[in-house]
Amino acid sequence: MNYSKSLTGLALLAAATGCSKRQEAQPNIVFFLVDDMGWVDSEVAYGTEVYPNNQRFNTPNMRRLAEQGMVMGNAYACAVSTPTRTSMMTGMNAAHTRITNWTSIVRDTPSDATGGALSMEINRTGAEAPSGELLRPDWNINGISPVEGVPYTQVCTPMAQLLKDAGYYTVHAGKAHFASAGTPAANVYNLGFCVNVGGTMAGQPRSYQGRDNYGNTPELWNHCAVQNMTEYYGTETHLTEALTREALKTLDYPVSHGQPFYLYLAHYATHTPIQPDERFVQKYRDAGMDEGQARYASMVEGVDKSLGDVLDYLEAHGLSENTIIIFMTDNGGNAENKQKGGIPHTHNKPLREGKGSCYEGGIRVPMMFCWPGRVAAGSRCEVPVICEDLFPTILSMAGVRDYETVQDVDGQDLVPLITRGEGVSAERELVFHYPHKWKPYDLVDIDYLSAMVKGDWKIVYRMLTDEVELYNLREDIGEENNVAAQYPEKAAEMARGLSDKLRGWNAAMPVVAATGEAVPMPDHLFEK
Amino acid sequence: MNYSKSLTGLALLAAATGCSKRQEAQPNIVFFLVDDMGWVDSEVAYGTEVYPNNQRFNTPNMRRLAEQGMVMGNAYACAVSTPTRTSMMTGMNAAHTRITNWTSIVRDTPSDATGGALSMEINRTGAEAPSGELLRPDWNINGISPVEGVPYTQVCTPMAQLLKDAGYYTVHAGKAHFASAGTPAANVYNLGFCVNVGGTMAGQPRSYQGRDNYGNTPELWNHCAVQNMTEYYGTETHLTEALTREALKTLDYPVSHGQPFYLYLAHYATHTPIQPDERFVQKYRDAGMDEGQARYASMVEGVDKSLGDVLDYLEAHGLSENTIIIFMTDNGGNAENKQKGGIPHTHNKPLREGKGSCYEGGIRVPMMFCWPGRVAAGSRCEVPVICEDLFPTILSMAGVRDYETVQDVDGQDLVPLITRGEGVSAERELVFHYPHKWKPYDLVDIDYLSAMVKGDWKIVYRMLTDEVELYNLREDIGEENNVAAQYPEKAAEMARGLSDKLRGWNAAMPVVAATGEAVPMPDHLFEK
Repeated sequence: MNYSKSLTGLALLAAATGCSKRQEAQPNIVFFLVDDMGWVDSEVAYGTEVYPNNQRFNTPNMRRLAEQGMVMGNAYACAVSTPTRTSMMTGMNAAHTRITNWTSIVRDTPSDATGGALSMEINRTGAEAPSGELLRPDWNINGISPVEGVPYTQVCTPMAQLLKDAGYYTVHAGKAHFASAGTPAANVYNLGFCVNVGGTMAGQPRSYQGRDNYGNTPELWNHCAVQNMTEYYGTETHLTEALTREALKTLDYPVSHGQPFYLYLAHYATHTPIQPDERFVQKYRDAGMDEGQARYASMVEGVDKSLGDVLDYLEAHGLSENTIIIFMTDNGGNAENKQKGGIPHTHNKPLREGKGSCYEGGIRVPMMFCWPGRVAAGSRCEVPVICEDLFPTILSMAGVRDYETVQDVDGQDLVPLITRGEGVSAERELVFHYPHKWKPYDLVDIDYLSAMVKGDWKIVYRMLTDEVELYNLREDIGEENNVAAQYPEKAAEMARGLSDKLRGWNAAMPVVAATGEAVPMPDHLFEK
Repeated sequence: MNYSKSLTGLALLAAATGCSKRQEAQPNIVFFLVDDMGWVDSEVAYGTEVYPNNQRFNTPNMRRLAEQGMVMGNAYACAVSTPTRTSMMTGMNAAHTRITNWTSIVRDTPSDATGGALSMEINRTGAEAPSGELLRPDWNINGISPVEGVPYTQVCTPMAQLLKDAGYYTVHAGKAHFASAGTPAANVYNLGFCVNVGGTMAGQPRSYQGRDNYGNTPELWNHCAVQNMTEYYGTETHLTEALTREALKTLDYPVSHGQPFYLYLAHYATHTPIQPDERFVQKYRDAGMDEGQARYASMVEGVDKSLGDVLDYLEAHGLSENTIIIFMTDNGGNAENKQKGGIPHTHNKPLREGKGSCYEGGIRVPMMFCWPGRVAAGSRCEVPVICEDLFPTILSMAGVRDYETVQDVDGQDLVPLITRGEGVSAERELVFHYPHKWKPYDLVDIDYLSAMVKGDWKIVYRMLTDEVELYNLREDIGEENNVAAQYPEKAAEMARGLSDKLRGWNAAMPVVAATGEAVPMPDHLFEK
């Protein structure tokens, strides 16, 4: 008996008898999430013009995807990783989950750089944080939880669980970082994934290098050592390549059974440590980039190669027509870390600042949708969208309707927008909230910021100095010209909008050290 | 829409249209493998009489399984772990795979205690092995491989791959130890598993305790730190419990889709480190066991509780009638490690010696089959069987026929034997081969032994002293009376049988240090 023939026979039988109905209505979905890659750092021009970096990075497969799908010109995520990931998994804004910072390895341990103990030995270096004027807020430091009763968590019905319940084969590959160790959501099996490759409570890899066993050596090990990669120990296989191969292996089962899959391929790259992908780094050095920039560019190209491998896999298996691909990054490019080379705080030019910040460099992210037959190839959409929209959007794509969740979903289904250009207002209020101190040293354009985007307008609330700034993003994407004084009524309206949102979500606010009171909402600046 | 109802509806549709045919012909299979648990260390009497330990260990679920199925009175495995696991995965005798010792963490590194570097820092303690008269053989030190071209491996078509190809959802949970890191079979996804929970190239856990993060702490970490257990870090969850919960979670997908599954639940317990399962240990202390014995007994009971949880899961999901359970251990009980307490080399009484040895204490193992409607409940079978039989047996149970393998399979399908009492001769020649030095110190009844069982007779070849011993196991299960001198013709016949097998398989033999020649086959003792 020939088994491949036998399986084909069964698939035909299933088709003949109607058993495959579910599959026809359920496209496969690949969510390809990149970490810390900047908005301008690829061949795809997300902006309305082409910036210098768009021409420095070699990403033919991102371009290939853009040509097959829709580029989102105004897509947003949170300023750091866990809030974006947990917002997508819950459909809630980060101010609403109260998960506004990255979750620590160790549970019940705030990751804030002041006002609480740091959580990992790897971050303890230089961690004698200056005592600030603001103290850390009471946020959900343990992340999300699929069950009640875990302290400092947002309880949720996770997106992956709804997909699995609807028949999807759900694969997690790469970085998870949804919750701290010792809580249920540190284990993605509890979030509805059927398979997990390499996802833990860690937000970064100990090493990207196979020759380092990805950190699994006596010299290197800490909790960021990557799990499930034993096959590649002692080899020259970069983690991005290894994760891609492993992720595609896990699709064998659903593909051979004709069952729909959801592949969440969340690369650790390009998070620190910035280490070269040896396959690509030399040409960037040769092009004159400094070593940090060259390494980062090689990591971007490694991710691009991974995307190409996924696209090739889908084509080789005849799945391209029935597979949706979502491409996105989890926050803005890191513009602060010395490993990345370049001039600090300039990496995302023309955008202001980078990861950690509520300025555009921290929250404006690459995003693309490829959906053959439904989303126009080579198209663009300029309506602002935000990470929590992915929750209802992905469930809508999967045909999951009228589901019940324990949480209140804030995001909006983008399917009408991307397929027919309707259904999502360009004037929605999109909120960003980072009531934290990021690093032991002060970062004035990162620490303690809130912001709201509404159409062309953006307000930034600087909690530490208790002032607001107003920008017109259409005219000033670089947020160089604060026009709050020029448009006081718009500033007040935006401040009220942001304040109402934060109040409605009972958002966590820092505490003023001198008074013990929470930082007030920005609309207090416009009272009287 | 209610998804659980919707799935039920689809299952009914499938049943009505014949789509479930495959499932009806394909029972679920649970292979429940225990590590290092001795033959007498449970409530199940595998022997023809009840021994003292059978009354000291509390294993109600093993008894429950025995009452539902068949106890194999003469089941054998290899003397150590990797050879048994790779024999089951390939269907080959360990002398034939040339994987006769445990595989190291680091590839290309023999684990032998002399004649080669040891492989892990954790074993380097006291590793200044005395130079022996024999040097290590040229064995397949990297284990198995599913592909050609990996040095020091036995290439194979793995059992799990054949099951997956036939439509099974194949789950690996627990200890893998099929190959060294940096080779394909260090990753069980390359062996045909759809899911892996906690399996690596390691043969033991760094810690069984959740409070130790299973070894994932800066103080404890080495390559035996258990992966994929982040949910339980800092809790009191014993590894055996955590693995059981995780294994059962992975069955959600196949069970909800009505698809057959193969669950290979290979507990790390009761391998060293001998650490208490706090849920059960106190009563063994109270019963007067020394601390080591009490800890070991608590680990056995933890495994028993896991078995009960699996049985309960199957019952709760209505799967008991269509699920086969195979219960087995990977080798004899460890009778050499001080952590286990008791008197060294006596733990498996009435059997001689323990793990590592080709005497009965090292190779005679617990085995049970539970197969409702096919294998008689509460029955026994006395025909000798051996671990490589599991390869054709499990494939036969799964209805996989006429499969092709790159390797020559030595094992025999036991289905006719256990269902109808026929088809397998009680006079088969079963071979055991341990051409190694196990520990840095000499272990005269463990190092450099080969053996063959044929019916009641057993020959043991002691390579170091170049002599054979003959035992009649029916009369002398303790191998106390060497009757080689009394039955020289039987000894010669058995020596020839063993030699022919080893020669036929091109078995790896130690090298005589003085001459550089391989140790001769035992039939040379009967020439002239």
